[in-house]
This record gives sequence, structure tokens and C-alpha cells, in this order.
Amino acid sequence: MTNNLSLVKALTFDVFGTVVDWRTSIIRECSELGESKGISADWEAFADKWRGGYAPSMDQVRKGELPWKSIDELHRMVLDRLLDEFNITNLSEDEKVDLNKAWHRLTPWPDSVEGLTKLREKFIIATLSNGNISLLVNMAKHSGFPWDLILSSELAKHYKTDKEVYLKAASLLDLEPEEIMMCAAHQDDVLAARALGFKTAYISRPLEFGPDRKNDATNDMPFDIIARDIVDLAQKLGA
Amino acid sequence: MTNNLSLVKALTFDVFGTVVDWRTSIIRECSELGESKGISADWEAFADKWRGGYAPSMDQVRKGELPWKSIDELHRMVLDRLLDEFNITNLSEDEKVDLNKAWHRLTPWPDSVEGLTKLREKFIIATLSNGNISLLVNMAKHSGFPWDLILSSELAKHYKTDKEVYLKAASLLDLEPEEIMMCAAHQDDVLAARALGFKTAYISRPLEFGPDRKNDATNDMPFDIIARDIVDLAQKLGA
Repeated sequence: MTNNLSLVKALTFDVFGTVVDWRTSIIRECSELGESKGISADWEAFADKWRGGYAPSMDQVRKGELPWKSIDELHRMVLDRLLDEFNITNLSEDEKVDLNKAWHRLTPWPDSVEGLTKLREKFIIATLSNGNISLLVNMAKHSGFPWDLILSSELAKHYKTDKEVYLKAASLLDLEPEEIMMCAAHQDDVLAARALGFKTAYISRPLEFGPDRKNDATNDMPFDIIARDIVDLAQKLGA
Repeated sequence: MTNNLSLVKALTFDVFGTVVDWRTSIIRECSELGESKGISADWEAFADKWRGGYAPSMDQVRKGELPWKSIDELHRMVLDRLLDEFNITNLSEDEKVDLNKAWHRLTPWPDSVEGLTKLREKFIIATLSNGNISLLVNMAKHSGFPWDLILSSELAKHYKTDKEVYLKAASLLDLEPEEIMMCAAHQDDVLAARALGFKTAYISRPLEFGPDRKNDATNDMPFDIIARDIVDLAQKLGA
């Protein structure tokens, strides 16, 4: 290992897209619900718009146009708009609540549990997600993620990529930034942590946005590690 | 199960005394260090005073006489006083730092890992300790506790038994108080949670304070469950 990676004691992981395949999971849950309720729709477009609505909602919170809201609440706001847009009118409140919880049941990428389990032998492993704590706990129970602890934007009342999120994680771990490696499939997340002195790993997830949209990998990424997946990250870290 | 215990989704555990045997661990670590440094002292008294200094220090924070401090910091304040009191003058700063971290390496009661592992199959299990997050994470790694998440007074910047600690845990779990069972070996902790609507379990730890001091069990405890240990708690909860 180079660049003083020997100092690293904890790895913090982005979750949506990095550890779980949100798109396939959401399309599947929507399709299944649609089938059982006799609703036909372009569920791929629905899933993409649901996810797409999330960054603008976070920005509204950032700008103070909305008070602090959890991702569960933001997902629900976007869902209600989309149900209107797609003219889906026959879901009960209980069905909407359950559909919104599809984000608690996202399916891991095939390497995630194996890679995290290896990394946990050598490092403290934590989530560092915009997902709220209860969502991340339910997801971990559902998928068997072996997190040592659940860290979330919710604890800072700021969303990534605001610096408060990363600094709160370092403070709670009682570690210096260079003792923590931020691991994510999105350059902006890893770059924000890097600017604060974190070590960095980019995990490539070429299928995050489906077969027709590329991820944000480039040839000039300035990260300590660029990994094909989490098992590859474990291997590169000697875990 | 009676008293609507069927609603319970998460168990929150006190840690020092309830899950780990702090006294035996601290006496052992102090004795070993003493032996290696040629210090003889009454290490049982030393351990009891170290633990005893913790509640008054928390009270100083509560009253605003001290700013917020983590338990690591409070333990160190008390340790420095005790080293003076016991005339122990030959420890280096590194040795003091390491000795203070003895609280990160406390030994579980013999039933703790087995009981928690059973409970985790049926419930979300979390710490809810005055210990800081990093201490609780290190302890879990050290002893193999299978926590789903680490909750701490640190997240509320209040110590138990202040209500903010329990309410913060409920908020982060996104559960109602009656969906959470507070589990502890100390009546004041369980009573504080009960007053907020939490379900309650008292776990008897007759040896917490050593063979010569009784714990605080009484015959009239108003808790939903009174358990001999954590395996017994799991059995009583059908886990």
C-alpha cells in the first residue's frame, strides 16, 4: 500500500449505488406492485425519476427552502409527485408507505457482502450515506451487511457532499481524516472527503444507472484506490 | 409475552455492567500494568474509585460546570486524579492513554455474546450507553458483539438518565417508545426509559460491583421483564 494507507483504521461507505443496486431493486418492486394492482407503466423511467428527484429535494433542504427531512421523507415527497405524473391513483396509503420502504430493501451488488465481510476483519467498516439511520439498519438486516456501525448524514443534519457529514463521522469515530477511507461509486462524494484529508477509494459500478447510462468514472481520477468492486477493494487493501 | 411486548422491534442495551464486566476487566488490566511497572496498589479499590468518579463527572457536565466531554475524556480526568491519589508517578503519557483505553477492552459477561446473537435474529439490537461511539465500536470489535447499530449518549450530547438520550434513540430508530425495550442492569436507567413509554427489561448482574457490594435489584421492580442474564432475556422474548 502506498500514500500512507497503512494509517487507515476505518472505511466509510456510500451505500446507494456503491453497496446496493438501487435501480434493479426499485424496478422490480414497482413492477411487482404494478402487476398485483393491474397498473402498467414504464417502471424503468419511474425508478430513474424517483432516484432523480432526490438530489433536487436535498438541495431544497440545503438552501433552507425545506426544513431538515430524512431521505424516507424526501423519497415520499418525490413518490407522491410521481404517482400523480404517472396517473397512478389506486394505491392505498399503506401501499404507498410500503412502496416507499422499497429503499430499505435494496439488493446488494453480488460482491458487497463478501467484500465487506473481508474488510471487517481488518478495519472498522461503517456506512456514510444520505440514507437515514433506520433505513440503513433495516437494509443491513435485510441483506446481511456486517457494518460495525451505521453513520448517516442524519447525524450531521447535513447531506453529502456537505463537509459537515464527513467531519461528523471522523469526530464520532475519534479518528483523524487520514485514518479514514471514504469509499464510493461517485466522484463528487469521494472528492469531498478527499478535500478534508480522507483517504479515498472509488468503486466502479458501471451498471448503477442501467445499461444505457454511463457511470462517472474517468481516466484521471485522483483517488488512492480505484476498485472494480468491494472484493477487489478488500484485495487491494490486503484484507 | 404480555403487556404488548409483541410491538417491540428494537432492544437498546446499557453496556457497562449490563453487557460487560467492567470491574474484573479494569482490575486485571491495572494489575498487569502494575506488575510490569513495579507498582503495587489496591487495584480493586482503584477500579472502584475509577468507576465511582464517573457519575460525579457526568453531573459536572450536566450542571454546565464542564463543557460536553466524552466518557473517554471523563475517564481520563478521573484517572489523572487517581494516579495522584495513589502516588503512581512512573507512567508515561502513552501508558496512561493505553490504560484509559482499558474501558474499550472490557470483557463480556459469559452469556452476553450468545444472548445478543439470539436476540439479533428477532430484533434490532443497539447499544444505548454513556460510552462514546468509538469506545463502543472498539469494544464490539474486541468482544464480538453483534450490534446492529451503535447508539450513544454522545449523539444527544446528554448523559443517561437524561430523557434526551432515550428520545434521540427512538428518533434515530424511527420507532415509537413502546416499540423499543430498554435493557439494563440498573434500575434508574430502566425507570427513565419506562417514564417515556419504553418497554423495559432489568438484567440482574449481582457481581457487577464485586462480591462484597450488592446490585440494586429489589423485589418490587415494575419492569416488563426481569432476566437472570441476556440468554434468559432472549428466552423470555422467544428469540
